[in-house]
Formats: sequence, C-alpha cells, structure tokens
Amino acid sequence: MKFYSKKNLQFLLHDVFQVATLSQYSFFADHNQETYNMVLDACTELSTHKLRPILVEMDRIAPKFENGRIKVHPAMKALMQEFGEGGWINAPLSYDEGGQQMPYMIFNATLFIMGAANYSASVFPFLSAGAANLIRSFGTSQQKEQYLDKLYTGQWQGTMALTEPEAGSSLGDISTSAEPTTEGYYLIKGQKIFISCGDHDAVDNIVHLMLARIKGAPKGSKGISLFVVPRMRLNSEGNLVFNDVTTGGIFHKMGYKGAPIAHIITGENDDCRGYLVGEANKGLNCMFQMMNEARIAVGFNAASIASAAYYSALQYCRERSQGRKVGTQSTEQALIIEHADVKRMLLFQRSIVEGSLGLLMECSKYADLTRVTVGKEKEKYEALLGLLTPVAKSYPSEMGCLSTSAAIQCLGGYGFTEEFLPEHFYREARIHPIHEGTTAIHGMDLLGRKIAKDQGATLRILVAEITATIQAASQEERLQKQAALLGTTLEKLVDTTMNLSMLAMQGKLEAFLSDATIYLEAFGLVVIGWQWLKQGLVAAQKLGDGDDNFYEGKLHTMDYFFAYELPKTRGLLTTLKSSTQITMNIQDEHFD
Amino acid sequence: MKFYSKKNLQFLLHDVFQVATLSQYSFFADHNQETYNMVLDACTELSTHKLRPILVEMDRIAPKFENGRIKVHPAMKALMQEFGEGGWINAPLSYDEGGQQMPYMIFNATLFIMGAANYSASVFPFLSAGAANLIRSFGTSQQKEQYLDKLYTGQWQGTMALTEPEAGSSLGDISTSAEPTTEGYYLIKGQKIFISCGDHDAVDNIVHLMLARIKGAPKGSKGISLFVVPRMRLNSEGNLVFNDVTTGGIFHKMGYKGAPIAHIITGENDDCRGYLVGEANKGLNCMFQMMNEARIAVGFNAASIASAAYYSALQYCRERSQGRKVGTQSTEQALIIEHADVKRMLLFQRSIVEGSLGLLMECSKYADLTRVTVGKEKEKYEALLGLLTPVAKSYPSEMGCLSTSAAIQCLGGYGFTEEFLPEHFYREARIHPIHEGTTAIHGMDLLGRKIAKDQGATLRILVAEITATIQAASQEERLQKQAALLGTTLEKLVDTTMNLSMLAMQGKLEAFLSDATIYLEAFGLVVIGWQWLKQGLVAAQKLGDGDDNFYEGKLHTMDYFFAYELPKTRGLLTTLKSSTQITMNIQDEHFD
Repeated sequence: MKFYSKKNLQFLLHDVFQVATLSQYSFFADHNQETYNMVLDACTELSTHKLRPILVEMDRIAPKFENGRIKVHPAMKALMQEFGEGGWINAPLSYDEGGQQMPYMIFNATLFIMGAANYSASVFPFLSAGAANLIRSFGTSQQKEQYLDKLYTGQWQGTMALTEPEAGSSLGDISTSAEPTTEGYYLIKGQKIFISCGDHDAVDNIVHLMLARIKGAPKGSKGISLFVVPRMRLNSEGNLVFNDVTTGGIFHKMGYKGAPIAHIITGENDDCRGYLVGEANKGLNCMFQMMNEARIAVGFNAASIASAAYYSALQYCRERSQGRKVGTQSTEQALIIEHADVKRMLLFQRSIVEGSLGLLMECSKYADLTRVTVGKEKEKYEALLGLLTPVAKSYPSEMGCLSTSAAIQCLGGYGFTEEFLPEHFYREARIHPIHEGTTAIHGMDLLGRKIAKDQGATLRILVAEITATIQAASQEERLQKQAALLGTTLEKLVDTTMNLSMLAMQGKLEAFLSDATIYLEAFGLVVIGWQWLKQGLVAAQKLGDGDDNFYEGKLHTMDYFFAYELPKTRGLLTTLKSSTQITMNIQDEHFD
Repeated sequence: MKFYSKKNLQFLLHDVFQVATLSQYSFFADHNQETYNMVLDACTELSTHKLRPILVEMDRIAPKFENGRIKVHPAMKALMQEFGEGGWINAPLSYDEGGQQMPYMIFNATLFIMGAANYSASVFPFLSAGAANLIRSFGTSQQKEQYLDKLYTGQWQGTMALTEPEAGSSLGDISTSAEPTTEGYYLIKGQKIFISCGDHDAVDNIVHLMLARIKGAPKGSKGISLFVVPRMRLNSEGNLVFNDVTTGGIFHKMGYKGAPIAHIITGENDDCRGYLVGEANKGLNCMFQMMNEARIAVGFNAASIASAAYYSALQYCRERSQGRKVGTQSTEQALIIEHADVKRMLLFQRSIVEGSLGLLMECSKYADLTRVTVGKEKEKYEALLGLLTPVAKSYPSEMGCLSTSAAIQCLGGYGFTEEFLPEHFYREARIHPIHEGTTAIHGMDLLGRKIAKDQGATLRILVAEITATIQAASQEERLQKQAALLGTTLEKLVDTTMNLSMLAMQGKLEAFLSDATIYLEAFGLVVIGWQWLKQGLVAAQKLGDGDDNFYEGKLHTMDYFFAYELPKTRGLLTTLKSSTQITMNIQDEHFD
C-alpha cells in the first residue's frame, strides 16, 4: 500500500527547493538530481519490502521486558545491519568521516519515507545517528574510535538519555550524578526514564549519551555535563564487560509500540563508568545540537505518519461506496470520494502532510546551507533555522494528530477497528506533541527565546522571506487572492507579536508567555501558508507540463489551505489580543 | 479516583435547569430535589464500587470470540442483574410500565456518571433500554409481554441492528431480507456488522431490533421495516430454542474494548424468525425514535469520557512538580498546575465537559417537557430538541477527542503510557464522532433537515431563547462583555445561515451542504456559548453563597470559553462565507 507520494517528494526537492543547486558548493558537488533519486528509490525499496511488512506485527507483538532485558521484533537485528551497511545512519557525514556528504534535504527525505513505512522501526537508526553525531562533534579521538564505527554500522545502538522521573521538560533539574575518579572516567549513578531504544536485543551494545551532574557542579542547567555511558564497556583487554547499566523496565505505550522505551538504572553497584563528552557543565549546549536535529526529525516523523494515514484513507475512499451524491437521484451508491465532506477531510490531511513537508524541507535546506556558507550568510540560515525549528517540530506534530483522526473518520466504523491502519497511525501520532519538547515548550522557545533574543531581528528576516514569496505569487493570477490573504495575515501576526513584546518590555514575563502555545499555532498557520503559496507558485507555473492532475491537485489543496486553515488565525489572533490573563488568574482551588 | 463533579452536576440540575420544577406536572409530582440526589448518589455508589474497578481490565482483557460465541468480562453477568434490579434500564418509564417516571434529566445524569466510571460497561444496559423502548412504543402486546420484562431486568440483552457491510451511513441501502410466512412471522436473512453487545455470555438471550426489507418492498428508505429478531426464540412449549442467529465474529477496536461489537449472521439455515414491530416499511421512522435518544446519550457518553480524563489530568497536575513558574526565580520546582499553559489545557477540558453537559441537560429538559405538555408548547420543545440533537451529539463527540488529547498532554510523557488513564480515554473517545451518525451526517441533518424543513422557523425559536439569555446576562456586570460577544456572533451565524439558504433556494443543493460540517462546528460553538452564559449567570448570582471557589471557577471557565473557544467561529464563518466550492471542484484524479 502506498504510504507516501514520490511525485510530491520530488516536486518539493527538485522543483520547489531545487536541491541540485547545492551542487554549486564543492561539499555537495558530486551529487545531482539523478543520484538523489537513486537514494530515494533505494530507501523506498527498503521501506516497502523490509519495514512496511512488519508494521502491524511490531505493534501487536510489542517489545517485552524479560529477565532484565528488552526483546524487540526479531527482524530488527538484520535491519540494524542493513541500516548500517546502506549508509542510512551516517550519509550526511563528510567523506573523511565515512559518510556520503549527503544533503539533509535528501537524508531527511529518507527519514520521512522510512517513517511513513514504519515509524517504530525507523527510530532505531535515527537515535544511533544522533548519539554518534554528538560524539563526533564533541568527543575525544579515543571516544570517536571506540564508538563511531560501531554506531554507524548498526552494530551498537545509540540513545539520548536525558529524562529522569523528576526531570522531563525541566532538564535543569536532573539529578543523575557523576563522580570524578583519578582514572579519568566518572562514576555515574541515577535513573533515566523514557529512553527510546534504551535497551534491546537487536544489537551487541547500547551507548547512552547521558546528561548527569558532576559532584559539586552548579545547580540548574549550568551544572549539567554530557557523558557517554555504554551498557557494556571495553576493558583493558578490549573485551566488552558489563558497565553496571541495568534495565529497570519498559514503558507500555498507546502507540509507537515497536520501539522499546526503557527505564535505565545506572550505578546500582557503584561501577558504572561514564566518559565526559565535551566540556564539563556544558552538557546541555552539546545536547541541544542533537535536540535541534531531532526536532526537525520529529517534524518529519509526524508528517510521515500523517502521510501514511492519508494514503490509507485515500485508497479506502476510492473503493468504498456509500450513499448518493447530494442533489443526484442515482440508484447506485456513490464512491465516498465523491462526497464533498469526504473530499474536505482528504484535503485537510493532504494540506497538513504537504504543507508540513514544505516547511521541513525549507529547514533542511537551511541546515544544508549552514554547512557550506560563511559569515553573514551562514548566520542568516542559522537564525532562520533556529526560528523555524519549534514550528517545524510542532505544526506537523499537533496537526498530525488531527490529520490521522480525519483518516479514521474517512473510514467510518471501519476506521475504529484494527482491520485498517488509520487507528494505528492515530495512536502512533500522539507521541509527537510530547517528545523532543512538548508543544508548550516550543511555544515558549519561539516567542520567549527565538523571537525575543534579538529583538525580532530574525523574525524580520523571515518576514522578508515570506514577503518575497507573496510578491512573486502576486504576479500569478491564479494566486493573487491567496497572496493578498497571506500578506494581511502576516501583518496581523507581526502586530500581535509587537503587542506581546510590550508585555515583555514591561517585565510582565508570565503574561508575555502565557499564551505562547496559541501564538505558536497562529505562527505555524502563517508559515505553512507561506509554504503553500510557494508550492502553488511552482505548480501554477508548471501547469501544462504533462502532470496536470498533480499540479491541479496541488493548487486545489493550496486553495483549501487558504479557505479552511489560514482563517483559523482570525480566532487565534483575537484570543491573543483579547486575552485577559484568564489562565494566570485562575487558581488551583477553582478547578473542581 | 474522581471521575465527575457531583457539585457541578447538582449545579446544573438544581440551579441552572431546576429539575425540581418538573414536579408541577403530575407525571413527575412524586419526585423532589432530595429524591433526585438519592438516585445520583446510588448511581455514584454503583459506578465507584462496581464499574470503575474493572475499567482497565475490560480494556486489557477484551471480549473474545470463541467457538462461535463472544465472552465478555465475567463481572458483566452480575452487573446486568444489578442494572436491571436497580432500575437503571427502565427508570424513565411510567409506573404502569414498571418504571419510576424519572425525568430524562436525572436518568441521563446517571448515564453520564456510569459512562464516566466505565463507558464500556455502561453501554450494555443502555442498549437494552433502547431496544425495549422500541418494543414498548411500537410492538404488539404479545411482543411486550415476551420481551420487556426480560430486557428491563437485565436477563436479556437488547441491541440496535442496523448497519450492514454495504450500508452504514446510508441505511436506505440495507439488504437484509424478510420473507413473510403464513405463520405471521418473517424469515430473516442477511448480515449485520458493528452490532454493539450483539452477542455475549453475560445474559441468557440477545434480542436484536433489526432493520430488514420485506420482499417486494419499495427500494430505499421507504421499504425498510423493523423486526424483533431474538437469538433464541420461544417455541410453542415456552422453551428457548436457537433462532438461526449466529455470531460471525468480533471487531477488534482501538478503544471502548470492553463492549463487544459483533458481526451477526441471520438465516444461514433459513430458520431465522423475525417479528414485525410497527407498520411494514415504516421501520426507519420507528428506529429514529431510538436513534434520537441514542444520539443524546452519545453526547452524554462523550462528555463523560472527557470528564473522566479531565479529573485524572487535574489530579496529576496537582501532584506533579516540574520547572519553575515563568518570571520567578524559585529553587523549588512548581506544581505544574501553576503553569499558565497547563491551566489553559485544564480550562479547555473543563469548558468542553461542562459546556457539553449544559447543552445535554437542556435537551434532556426538552425531552422531559415533551412528555408533560401539549399542543403548541409540546411542539416547541419537540422542535428545539430536534434542532439541537445533532449539536448535542456532535459537539461533545468531536471536542471529546480534543479534550482527552489535552488530558494526555497535561501528563507529558506519562500521558502516552498505559500507567495512566488518559490514553485509555483518548482511544475510547474516538468512537463518538463515528457511531450514531458521523459528524458529517449530523452537519447535514442540522442544516439540510432541521433548519431547512420549516424555513428556519425552529431556528428562530432557538435564537429567541439564546437572545433571552443574552438579555438576562447583559444585566449582570460580570457578564456584559460575554453577552455582547455572543450576541454579535449569533447575528453572524444567522446571516451565514441565510446566505447558505440562498444556495438551497437556487437548487444548488450540493453547494448548500458541502460545508455542513463546518457549519455544525460554528453552530455548536454558539450554542455552547449560550450554555456558558446561562451557567455564568447563575454562578454570578450565587457568588457569596458559600461555594465561591466553585462559582469563581465556573466564571473563569466561562471567561475561557469566550476568550479562546467562541472566537474560533471567526475562522469558521469566514470559511463558510468565502468558500469557493473547493471541495466540490476537486476530483478523484487530483488527490495523488
């Protein structure tokens, strides 16, 4: 069954974002459109024949915690090797580092394809990549030698070990301790929870990139250091021996069941060795590199699940007959895809999937450009990427829940049953507004940090980018109305931002940030509207090129977004304007 | 664990809707506030001690299909008897019929309490009541004698057997056939799917109220008749013998797993006897009586699940510490209920739960008044009840999905795990926008039938009711802003309705109804705004009565609704106004 649109992915990569233009930079010079498509085809092949067939099994026969270890689906062992051998873990790295100097645009597209096929299976290699990249960026040469090859080849599993029972969103409060020894390593002691792929039997070893607090370090986020803490460590003879990292249990989840989420206990026998990565007390800074990449990846994952749900709903709507088209007297039942409300639900899903993908590709392109540009130009891309990251993470995550819900609705009663896939995607999608920073955290990151930190300078750069798209679209008759609508909405958003910033300037910090989630939602709609205009512009120009059903569909979906989705900003901006600090005023005792 | 607010239920019943005033009618004269509260207390007792303890078990150990029969949780057998003995199936009936002449306001409140405790368990008696009520309304005296006592005492299970593999939303297309015999009964043959409680081992017999088509009957909905089709029929000696009703299987669902949903096959051996209920070919009319009651009940069920999720989230937010309050420099973590965004999510949930309950009580009161009034007055209540039924079903159902999602979000990572209840409620809530008519069906029912059928006459009655509340609220300083906002929104809604009706008058039926779902959403927000104003008015007047935390909380939640929810109409009405028939224009081939 189709789980993503190759045509659309190529449209975005080649026509809208023109990935091949990266070849002007020597780092990417070996690649071209053809080699990119070969990568995507190989990924689709792997995804279709290896990942998708075990999608349902990995959900129904979830990982088990037995005798202190976690067992995952037996196919994962061979898959981990295949991920490693195929370069699906380290393709963006330089040739020197064993990679392929692959643009993030392409690498993230492969994440998207694998996630659409089988999200749970796709997180194993992704987590290894994140962990390995941290060692590569901040580790010692000995650490690199010891871990990178094992992680990039899929022999070992990497993890991000941040969360603790009392420290989730508030990482500054972690209490796992690291005691220096004279041998150079630290003795680690503490508990970590919600560690994705934190233990399993498809690899020979697990390597945790773990946050801990060196004894005597400052309180809060300025006293957190990053360590590599393997489950098995190499002893002086070069053998793997147990490193006092035990698995306390597994979390049973609503969805995304195929990937084990572990409770990890370190140092129960005071023999857990951790090796400092980067500078002491600078652990959060290091970790944020991985987290920013992970946040974009979560956006792709959320969009991929919505994509899979969309295509399963679309197929059903094309096969299922029910009722008559309104206003006709036919004796035959109509296919449900003929009903306006069903088409509305499909358009809703597609507008989310493809709008999100546009933004995610935009961010991926910025990430690529930061690798090959310097000075002011590099700073600009970094700033835009930073500003858009909370949106690229949150919009697909939040809307993915609604999009998969619409997929269920397309199937009616069958949508609620396990006979069809949408309920699977609905359960799976729900993790994304939570992990890698909840939506609320991203709202505060956007408004309180990314916009506020330079007094709106980066926001003005983004506004200029959006305005350029609006101006280009205004030249195209088919897009004039949408361009104008985005223009006025953008103005209102900027006005709202200025009004909110007054609160910050007056020192009313809580009021400034109290509706940051609502602000993020409005901001997301404007940014996705920008992406739709961008895609509509290319589609309008390519009409007549032979793929007119695709371009017409693209333009209809853009129309849908501007008629049904962007107007939601009206309510949100009204709320932001009128808010009388209700959420600040109500107190605990009023909630019963 | 608390799953509903007794205080709020009593506030609605006694203070807002003044259920005791029904006692002015002789039918209800034996009841008073005290007896009502006793009923609610008894129901809470049953729900707390019998239903809630098996909530999780009924989900984890779902009903099984074994040897052609369905096995449910073993506790259901005793529970069915208790439902019967306690009068929880037939309390609204007249004394003559063995009932207690209980107002629907109170009976539906007990549905709400039981649903909040354990929705799956609560549907068993509810379905029996629906089936029995149909026999009572339309059956022969022999049918009544044979079935009613067994159904009302919980010895037998009643069902609504409508849906077929090819006929879900489109009931006119059912193909189950009924062949007349000279013995008076009909031979039934066909398949039914998604039959809630369609087979299980907690009762001695299953009685299907089944739609079928008498051979030679007109095509479509005018040729459908209603039959009672028991799984076991009484033979001439008064013994139960098999009636050729077999169980084809069970549907495995995402949630609401404790109640078995069966595939039922009738007449495989040409020996399935069905007994006509009411007139031939008038089956849908009869069934609609049950369906209308069922739709209000679904609204209550959806609100009850949202209520259960709200209180589980609230408890967590009061116990969990995380982060610091924005703008403070505390070293101690704050309880998460101190964070503005958490309070926003709690207010969102509460505004849905209590706003929905208000509307559902309004409808229940109309239902009660139709039983004791005559002439124009009765017609008015019937018309209002009919108009509001699609809203009372759909608003809680759609918003219940978002409300339970917010409950998950309050718990962060824990919310996605099976250790806490919100994920359970999230899965369970998703059925409600589907069964008893999908949201799209209700949108078309509201706009295309309920509003259009009398050229807006009933709508005008509703507008007058809402306007009366607005006027009363305008007298209260605390509510003036909200009253004014509701007034202008109501005006815009009426304008939009008139614009849409122009399309109908021009014969553009598809265009008229193409955005009926969006219309329903906007309509729902206005109606719930009305309910919040009504509740706010009473709360404002009762401030100082000793329960000020409750009344303040009520007013804050009303404030929330008017600042965050009602403004959503701005986007929706814009969409309805600007719609360029996008969903009609896009065609199948454009969707890839």
